Amino acid sequence: MKSTFDCIIIGAGIAGMTAAIYLKRANANVLIIDKDAPGGLLNSVKKIENYPGFESISGPDLAFKVYEQLQANDIEIQYGNVVSIDNHIVKTDIGEYETKYIIIASGRQAKKITQKNLDNLSYCVLCDANLYKNKVVALITDDNSEDALYLADICKTVILVSDKIKINKENVICEENMQSFEIENNVIKKIKLQNKEYDVDGVFISFGYEPTSNFLDTVEKENGYLIINPNMQTSIDYIYACGDIVKKNLYQVSTAIGEAAIASTNIVKRLKDK
Amino acid sequence: MKSTFDCIIIGAGIAGMTAAIYLKRANANVLIIDKDAPGGLLNSVKKIENYPGFESISGPDLAFKVYEQLQANDIEIQYGNVVSIDNHIVKTDIGEYETKYIIIASGRQAKKITQKNLDNLSYCVLCDANLYKNKVVALITDDNSEDALYLADICKTVILVSDKIKINKENVICEENMQSFEIENNVIKKIKLQNKEYDVDGVFISFGYEPTSNFLDTVEKENGYLIINPNMQTSIDYIYACGDIVKKNLYQVSTAIGEAAIASTNIVKRLKDK
Repeated sequence: MKSTFDCIIIGAGIAGMTAAIYLKRANANVLIIDKDAPGGLLNSVKKIENYPGFESISGPDLAFKVYEQLQANDIEIQYGNVVSIDNHIVKTDIGEYETKYIIIASGRQAKKITQKNLDNLSYCVLCDANLYKNKVVALITDDNSEDALYLADICKTVILVSDKIKINKENVICEENMQSFEIENNVIKKIKLQNKEYDVDGVFISFGYEPTSNFLDTVEKENGYLIINPNMQTSIDYIYACGDIVKKNLYQVSTAIGEAAIASTNIVKRLKDK
Repeated sequence: MKSTFDCIIIGAGIAGMTAAIYLKRANANVLIIDKDAPGGLLNSVKKIENYPGFESISGPDLAFKVYEQLQANDIEIQYGNVVSIDNHIVKTDIGEYETKYIIIASGRQAKKITQKNLDNLSYCVLCDANLYKNKVVALITDDNSEDALYLADICKTVILVSDKIKINKENVICEENMQSFEIENNVIKKIKLQNKEYDVDGVFISFGYEPTSNFLDTVEKENGYLIINPNMQTSIDYIYACGDIVKKNLYQVSTAIGEAAIASTNIVKRLKDK
């Protein structure tokens, strides 16, 4: 068992990083745990033009700026998967950590259609489109026309497989009724539709997001999103939440950081009251 | 009567400016009204180190960056005092404006101890301390030691008049029981305490803040702060609020912009539903 923390933050997206800055600047002993590099879903956002302070900034650029703030404040991040939370103990695949308080900021992730990690399958158009310059890709989506247009600007041909949307562009072929992949050596070679098939260099999937809350079984949720009170406290006294993991009406950088400020200052207050 | 706006925002602080950016980017016809230059209370904040994206930034610098975003989005600001709001009409000393929705983002202002605008009386240490380099100033406050220390670094002598705090520094004289000013030609020459008096070059006042909501008489308030629901809607259907004017637990840039995003997107939704 490692030393006891004042607060462990699960998730290094914009919400978790903001909460960490508030806590550390109030002299709390804080640790962030994330399975991936800092930034979370921000890393797949092309352009943000409604965040005060930046006329236009890419998601990864904003994430990196906030990561630099973590470093300037000497905030510790550990990279691991959280398995469960039980009575102030956070269990992960890199060890167990004891903590007085927890902030869940684990956000959302792209909905997957297969658990296989295939070499040319991507859930992030912004991240990976440039790997397929002048090549043939398929985009399998319900209604993400923005991703389709982005790919069309970069790739030679986009096979848009959607039962909901069509796009009228020279290099976009609109199809529906996705059936299966033909895979060789972990690479998708063809996509198969009901009556035809296409050779592809890469495949993109875009079916929206789902909350990352499987590791939490005792906290009150709705469709995987955490129910919180106005102090951003969950149904368990020492567990708070902020950002995209929370059940709410508006999922924005602006709302995430406001919630992070509220969750963290409530914890700071309780740490000081003791 | 001027043309009808989709939304008028009262106050060009961080909350009002953020709401304007969201609304304008959703193609709403929006107007900001403020009596002062954009920035609001931010203009008197020395240093912000917990706003994601900037390791350290002065309040005026952040305000100016957001003002540049307004300009980039071609958002209109009118400079005037709002007198009253009545049935979708905003009455100001520069004219009357009709609007579908209103966002109150009028924030807070320093508590005044006199209504007179005296030439060497200031309510903002950060703004005006540099006018008194190597001079003698009085700071009249309840408990703002931060302002006292800031002045002590710049001025020759600081007479700290407080019934609550004392500061142990070579050039700070601690006093209490403030009585009156001796004024000549609109300039404070002396401050008078119970048993003595001091010649001063300037006087600073710091007694905290009060909400700017006198022009609103029909909206539900508590101690001048507006009562809002989770959508940031006030007790009047078409009037929303965000930022420091709202009754809440945490007054921060982070919370203000989250609230601005919520108020404005709710209005955008209602504009589109029609």
